[in-house]
Amino acid sequence: MKLENYQPIRVFKIRGATNMILQIPEDERQRGLVTASSGNHGTAVSYLGKMLGVPATIVVPTTVVEEKVRAMQEYGASVIREGRFFDERFTKALELQKSTGALLIPPFDNPHIIAGQGTIGLEIFESLTDVDAVIVPIGGGGLISGIATAIKNLKPEAQVVGVEPERASSMYQSVKSGKITRLTDTTSIADGLAVRAPGELTFDCVKRCVDEILLVSEEQIERAVYTTMKEGHVIIEPSAAAAVAALTEKFQSRKGLKVVVVISGGNISLKMLHTILSKYS
Amino acid sequence: MKLENYQPIRVFKIRGATNMILQIPEDERQRGLVTASSGNHGTAVSYLGKMLGVPATIVVPTTVVEEKVRAMQEYGASVIREGRFFDERFTKALELQKSTGALLIPPFDNPHIIAGQGTIGLEIFESLTDVDAVIVPIGGGGLISGIATAIKNLKPEAQVVGVEPERASSMYQSVKSGKITRLTDTTSIADGLAVRAPGELTFDCVKRCVDEILLVSEEQIERAVYTTMKEGHVIIEPSAAAAVAALTEKFQSRKGLKVVVVISGGNISLKMLHTILSKYS
Repeated sequence: MKLENYQPIRVFKIRGATNMILQIPEDERQRGLVTASSGNHGTAVSYLGKMLGVPATIVVPTTVVEEKVRAMQEYGASVIREGRFFDERFTKALELQKSTGALLIPPFDNPHIIAGQGTIGLEIFESLTDVDAVIVPIGGGGLISGIATAIKNLKPEAQVVGVEPERASSMYQSVKSGKITRLTDTTSIADGLAVRAPGELTFDCVKRCVDEILLVSEEQIERAVYTTMKEGHVIIEPSAAAAVAALTEKFQSRKGLKVVVVISGGNISLKMLHTILSKYS
Repeated sequence: MKLENYQPIRVFKIRGATNMILQIPEDERQRGLVTASSGNHGTAVSYLGKMLGVPATIVVPTTVVEEKVRAMQEYGASVIREGRFFDERFTKALELQKSTGALLIPPFDNPHIIAGQGTIGLEIFESLTDVDAVIVPIGGGGLISGIATAIKNLKPEAQVVGVEPERASSMYQSVKSGKITRLTDTTSIADGLAVRAPGELTFDCVKRCVDEILLVSEEQIERAVYTTMKEGHVIIEPSAAAAVAALTEKFQSRKGLKVVVVISGGNISLKMLHTILSKYS
């Protein structure tokens, strides 16, 4: 397990946001940062705003988890609620960029963001040069694009396997049909993966560098949160659990391989954890 | 936090047992290993038995947690149930040593065991040379004796603070009265700390090297399991939680210090974790 849940903000998003924001000259950064996020990327931008002493504004969905809003506010960010879906809040972030002059830090479809997430791939190869397969959850596709680019350059024969919830399979559908496919609805427990359409860059990266995309059910995701806590004593969020579920449910025929599962984050509420413990133990 | 809960058997006990058993010449080891343990030390000896291909016998209390028996048996150990208290099962282990010729691996009152646990102190100093205080739970006293010996040799001005449950305060009582004091009963949720009397070596070590012993209540221990899970996303056993409770409940007046809490282990059942989550969240 590559444990991104032990990052300062409990999620890999800190890598891409840091890489992109540190590319911006210091005096330009003072214009402030703006982004659209259901939680984790917004927390990363808020965290960096605080570290660098720069104001940050995060556009979140109206359905946002209140704990995530509190995390952003604790880092001093302004939080604005807009719509239910990524494209609605992203449009609002673009408006704010234009009206305030703030710098837009996109959540996934940007080469600096992808390169930042890709440092995970470099670290995996550094620790385990004989890795056979890497399993990565797919939301907008930034994480897997970075990791796949790194792994396929260092060790082309290693498999990079993506995972999406059955209920939020926009990348899977897009690859299958050969063009970016927009879903009308996505309602997975894995909120970080509930993206209606992949980005242009990430779609292109995944087409070229990812070997396979697996789909997992909501129940498989929930059960993987439980199993990882029981067997590994590691607390993971449902988005990360999707990758664990792919390992336990779909890799039975691939025994003997050296497989790394990217545990993308650990932002799960104790309430949800309690519910899952009650259900499965 | 010094996270011994991520050791292979989820507890620091592997250090002392490894150090002692590796001192024994290889041909002598074939006589087999025997010990008395409520769980964690027995699991460590079982684990080493398996690693080294040596038979191991563990004498456990009749009140042992079944999950711990299963762990020992999974490593190939024979498990014998005897009495409720440490001295009862230790007498049985001594008998087995005499009748079978097996090597007795005591849980705490031995210089090799203490030296093995003391490697934690070396590592703490290596990572944090400006440490001000180290908080360590006390059961039989092997862990704190090793750590205090290391820390006081490397940095005499650093404080070493021991913690016992109010309901199992044998070391505290012994230090206070100046001689080894045996309790008639100990019934803490922190089963690893429920020892009726310290060892001779560990008592001597604690008298010389430990600055202070704090006592914590059962409720403070339970709440510390919850807090560590909520704030740190780390799953700890009640014995380790005693040290966290000492920090959160008794260190308020010592702000600004660099404090290391030794998280001695993570062997808690999901059932108990679920109960604690239900109670406090």
